[in-house]
Formats: sequence, structure tokens, C-alpha cells
Amino acid sequence: MVQLRLSDGEYMARRETILERLGQRGITGLVLFGAPSVSYFSRFTFIPTERPMAFILTKDSSALLVPRLEVEHAEEFALVDKIVDYPEFPGDRHPMEFIKDLLVDLGLSKARIGVDGDGYGAIYGYRGPAVSAVLPDATVENVRDDVEYMQMINSQDELTLIRESARWGNLAHTFLQEYCKVGVTETEISMRASFEATQSMLRTLGSDYRPMGRAGAMAGFRGQIGKDSANPHAMSNNARLKAGDVLVTGADATVWGYGSELERTMIMGEPTPEQERFFNLMFDVQTLAIEAIKPGIPCSDVDKQVREFFTEHNLWEYWRHHTGHAKSMQIHEAPFLDHGDDRTIEVGMVFTVEPGIYVNGFAGFRHSDTVAVTEDGVEWLTYYPRDLESMVIPV
Amino acid sequence: MVQLRLSDGEYMARRETILERLGQRGITGLVLFGAPSVSYFSRFTFIPTERPMAFILTKDSSALLVPRLEVEHAEEFALVDKIVDYPEFPGDRHPMEFIKDLLVDLGLSKARIGVDGDGYGAIYGYRGPAVSAVLPDATVENVRDDVEYMQMINSQDELTLIRESARWGNLAHTFLQEYCKVGVTETEISMRASFEATQSMLRTLGSDYRPMGRAGAMAGFRGQIGKDSANPHAMSNNARLKAGDVLVTGADATVWGYGSELERTMIMGEPTPEQERFFNLMFDVQTLAIEAIKPGIPCSDVDKQVREFFTEHNLWEYWRHHTGHAKSMQIHEAPFLDHGDDRTIEVGMVFTVEPGIYVNGFAGFRHSDTVAVTEDGVEWLTYYPRDLESMVIPV
Repeated sequence: MVQLRLSDGEYMARRETILERLGQRGITGLVLFGAPSVSYFSRFTFIPTERPMAFILTKDSSALLVPRLEVEHAEEFALVDKIVDYPEFPGDRHPMEFIKDLLVDLGLSKARIGVDGDGYGAIYGYRGPAVSAVLPDATVENVRDDVEYMQMINSQDELTLIRESARWGNLAHTFLQEYCKVGVTETEISMRASFEATQSMLRTLGSDYRPMGRAGAMAGFRGQIGKDSANPHAMSNNARLKAGDVLVTGADATVWGYGSELERTMIMGEPTPEQERFFNLMFDVQTLAIEAIKPGIPCSDVDKQVREFFTEHNLWEYWRHHTGHAKSMQIHEAPFLDHGDDRTIEVGMVFTVEPGIYVNGFAGFRHSDTVAVTEDGVEWLTYYPRDLESMVIPV
Repeated sequence: MVQLRLSDGEYMARRETILERLGQRGITGLVLFGAPSVSYFSRFTFIPTERPMAFILTKDSSALLVPRLEVEHAEEFALVDKIVDYPEFPGDRHPMEFIKDLLVDLGLSKARIGVDGDGYGAIYGYRGPAVSAVLPDATVENVRDDVEYMQMINSQDELTLIRESARWGNLAHTFLQEYCKVGVTETEISMRASFEATQSMLRTLGSDYRPMGRAGAMAGFRGQIGKDSANPHAMSNNARLKAGDVLVTGADATVWGYGSELERTMIMGEPTPEQERFFNLMFDVQTLAIEAIKPGIPCSDVDKQVREFFTEHNLWEYWRHHTGHAKSMQIHEAPFLDHGDDRTIEVGMVFTVEPGIYVNGFAGFRHSDTVAVTEDGVEWLTYYPRDLESMVIPV
């Protein structure tokens, strides 16, 4: 059975890497507030609210600051030397004062401190001071780029988790396609497919499975049905499927906090010549984009090839967004397959590849596949059929 | 049939109110980035990503800045004079440059501008300059408190939406309770209940229903099962229900972007004397808190009464969090029923009331009800049974 978790060693190695990276710039302490980054280094996953949480790291110690209500939860899951708690937000003493005490205790009051934000974000009703305001003698530097860069490069064990996610997203999508019938609503199809895939997933993986996020698998349409398929980020309106509808789908599953992205364009009944033409163009431009990905080139190169295809086939009227984005623990991540993103593609990066063609008032056409960058190109992590014939739903 | 949407007039009145409020301080322009606030003033609901969106308001004009992929979606739903789009993020010109152009066009280049954040938040891979950096001659002032204050006070039409949400949360919870059986998993019960309630909701409300968010109703446990019920923010581990388990549930439904919060403590089989004792204490402290709420007193007063109860009954070992929070469009909102929050309770505010008792290694006990503040106390918006007898699930 594959290992569906990351080893403690992997978390420890991440800490060594970031400390070494930051140490070169004289930074001796790290304070992270963002939930995915806290989880990335501490193994603790939580529901972010107006109550700040923070992961703190020095070469001698790791700590987690949590509100009282998360103490036992953190004790069970966090891989840290110390858990410090504050009673509540707003409470009678601000959580940032507790962070200050902790940083002072760790000898960081005059240090160079790396943060992912100078203070906690504007979440729900939170208000509070900057780290630099509570520790005026310290030098606070934003190191979000450093953390983000580490998160871009996936280890073999991280890739295993994303592969496993893709496997259950694939099952959810299989059910989704099977349940597509004329007259049935979007919500019913989506909820049934997600239910069936999740039940199979939980029973197959058993107690080895820790979602570290939303448990299970899901597949749906998010409103991209019929004419609304032309809105890339439509929202559900509970449409009933009709013959002739173009559907744009999405499927995912969460495994130890990691996900994947599978999207397909499906057609209710035999495609019209117009539907077939746009489908084939979308298919070709996605193929071209996936084949363009390789280590050593800038991300922008891939998007530029897609843009050339749009020019060549006179498709600019139907262009709505860039080619794709990185994908591991969050819905969207950097870097972007975008003509303005010149960061270099590296082995271990994982991308969604999803150039789309959107014909306003008619239909949208987009497949999204998740691929990992290898020495000589890509490994497809999603593997659902993508040819037109497989995408036609008999009506 | 009740009206399940807000009128255009309500959006217009909100704009007049904020302009008047800010105008008194010489602020003539408003720029909002936060998704709930953009939706609150523009009627446009969207999926926030690394691509910034902004609502811009002056006394003469309202505008929405969106990425190209949201144009048709915004045209369909946004109630604004003008939609301006930028191609993509990162793209070859930063979205903040487009905001700058728009603000200059609106004559705001040297104005006093109210913002809910000086720039777009740290979402996914977003990076970008502050508003004050792209408009150096303007005076940028954070007016988040002003916007938040307006959002705290719900109109009659907003209360109608929250009441409707509570109604479908109630149905989802009814199914949830019915499906609780020994040996069945958390995920199966939760997904079945959410499915059934959503299908009923969609069929009952028909085309009058616009979720403006996640469509439908849901009910679940989020991992608070058996001993894990003592973790207020546990996460799902797909436990199977056993005789003797204490369960802490949650239910909600989204109506035109508004929600409610219903949570219950249920017991699998006849409660032990210990379970009964803690249940009754929780029941009494929740009753006390709800009865304490009335307009004109500080939020802190309610929490202080709850804290006195904890002292009186020697319960501090089991205290984990404050009494509750405001609730309308977001999961948690300000103000908080917290001994450190001295904001005044006003008519039209909506609160969750949910003091909890958590016995580590044994079980947690929490009901949450959503109530609206009236002239002489509260109106219960959630109405699910809460007495012990109704909460016992036969095993």
C-alpha cells in the first residue's frame, strides 16, 4: 500500500532548508501566519479564522501559537517543540502580544525575522498590530517568496500524494459522467458523484487516509452548463441538463492536504459541427501546451506558444485566461503559465494545463490536466480520457 | 412566496450610506477588494483568487475592476455603472495599474480614498503594490471599520434571507439526526443529509433561488465525534458512530450569500450521568447567554455573564472559547460576544450564541443558535429542538 502521509523527516528537512536559505541573509527567526505555510512546516492543519495562529522557527526551536480552543487539536497533530496558547480573540490581551513574548523568549527581540506577512491578514473581524510594531528592535523581512519557492518543488512523497488525489478525482469524474442525463440537475449529479467517490475512497484507504483538509473526493460543474459554460468562473445556478449542452466539469480529492485538478468539456449528445470545431481547437492547444513544458525554460514560454496558437487560428475573441498554474496544497499556486511569468520551470513542479476557448452566448471549451515536470518533459498525473468521442454523453 | 433576494434599492441605499459616512471625513472615493464587501455593494459574487477584483465608488459613479475571464459573469450580475477589465495576472501590465487608471479617470488621483486594505491581500500567488504606491498624490485611509459596521446591522430583507437559510439548515439537521446510526461513518451521514436537504431546497425554491455562494444546505460533524467532540475545531477523520458517543454537529444553507449557524450536541443512546450533567450545564449557560442579549449593552456583558457561570460552576478547566460572533454573509463576523469586545449591541445585529464545555478525553458539549437582536431582546432564527430528550439518538 502506498504511503499516504509525509514522514516527520520531510518536515524536518523543510525546516533545515528554509533556515539555511534565510540564514544566508542573516535571518535567524521565521514567523508564518498563512494556513498552508503553517501546515507545510508544522504538520498542523486547521480552519483559519479571526483567531491568529502562527508557526515560529529558529535553529534551536519550533513553536506554534494557537488560541486556547486549538490546543488539544494541535497537540495531537503538530510536529513542534512547543505549543503556546492565548485565551481568545479579541480577549483582554491581544494575540500579537503573546507572539511578541514568544519571540522575545526565543531571543529574537533584536533579530532579523522572516515573515510571510507583517502581521495577521484581514480575516473575518480580525484587527491587530504588525509584527514590526510589537518588536520595534527587530528587523522584519517578508520571505514569502522563499517559502513559496520551496512549495513549488515537490518531493517524490508529495508527488505520491498528488497522484493519489488524481486517482480519486478520476473516480468522482467517472461517476459524474455516468450520472449526466437530460433533465437532471447540476447539483444532484455533482452531489451523487461526490458521495459515491468519497465513500469508495474512504473504504479503500481506511485508516491510512488523513485528508488534512476537506475529506474525500468531489466532482461538479460550478455552473458551467450550456451557455454558462462560456463563463470560466461561473457559479452554480442548478441548471437541468439539456440535449445539446456543453458541460465544463471539475474534479479533485484531498490527500494529506494535497490536491489535483481534472476538468473536462463534455457534450450532451452528438456534437454539432461548431461544437466539434471548438472542441478540437481546445484539444490541440492543450496538447501543444503540455508538450511545451520542460525544465529549464521560463513559464512564459508555454503561454506564449498558446498565444501564438490563438493568433494563428484567429481565436482571440474567445481568449479569457492564461494557460495554467502550479498546484499542490492550494487551489491555485505560483508560478503561473502566463506570458508575464518568467520564473524557470523546474523538475518537481506540478502544473495545471488548461487553456480555454470561450464563445460568449454559445459555449466554453476547457480541459484541465495536472502534470508533474520531469527531466525530459512531464508525467501526466490526471489520466481521464480527453478525446471527443469519450466526452460525448448519449442522450 | 418570500422574496429571496435583495432589491436594487437596498444596494443603492448602502452606497448612499457609506458615501455619506465617508464624506463627513472628506473621503470622496471608495476602493474595496474583499469579496464579501465587493458583493455587499455591487451584487457581484465571485470566487476570489490571485486575480484581484475591486469595487470602486464615488458619488457620480460605481465601477468594478475584473480580470478578463469574469467580464460576462460580472455583466450578468453586477449592479454597477461600468465594468473595467484587465487581461490577466500576472500578465504584462499589473492589475493595480488598471485600478490606478480607473481612479485617475474618476478624478481621484489627489483625493482622499477609503480602502478596505491598502492593496490586494496575499491570496495564492498574488504580489502587487499598494494603492497608495500607485497613487502617491492621493490620501489612502483604511475604512474597513465603516464597511464592517454597516454589515453588522441587518435590514428586514437581510433578516428574511437569514431566516430562510435557517429553515434549510434545520431540514439538513433533521436528516442528519435521522441518519445517525451505530456503525455508520461521519462522511456518509453528512453527505446524505446535505444531499437530501439540498435537493428539497432546490425543488422548493425553484428559480427564485440564487445561492450567491455554495448552493444548497449542509449538515455535518467536522470530526467532533466521541472523544474528538472535545476539540471545538476538529477536522473530519471519518469516524464511525458508536453507542455512547457524544456528537457535536453543524448545519447551514446559503441564500443570496447569507447564512446561519445551527449546532447541536447529540448523544448516541441514553446519556450517562456525566454526559447529562455537562449537557445540562451547557444548556443552561446557552440559555443564560441568549437571555442576556439586548440592544444598548456592550457585547462584553454577555460573555461576562457566561464567564461568571463558568466560575460559579467551577468549569474553567472546560472553557475553550468566547460566547459567539456576529453572522450574516461570512462564517464568522465582528462584533464578538467576547469579554474584550465593548462594541454596543444594536437592533438588527445577528449573533451566534454558542458557549461550549469541553472535557478533554471525554466529550464536548455545544449548541449554537443564531439570533437577531430586537427592540426588547432577541428573535431566534434557528429553531431546532435543543432539550436533552430530543438530542438522544436511540441505539
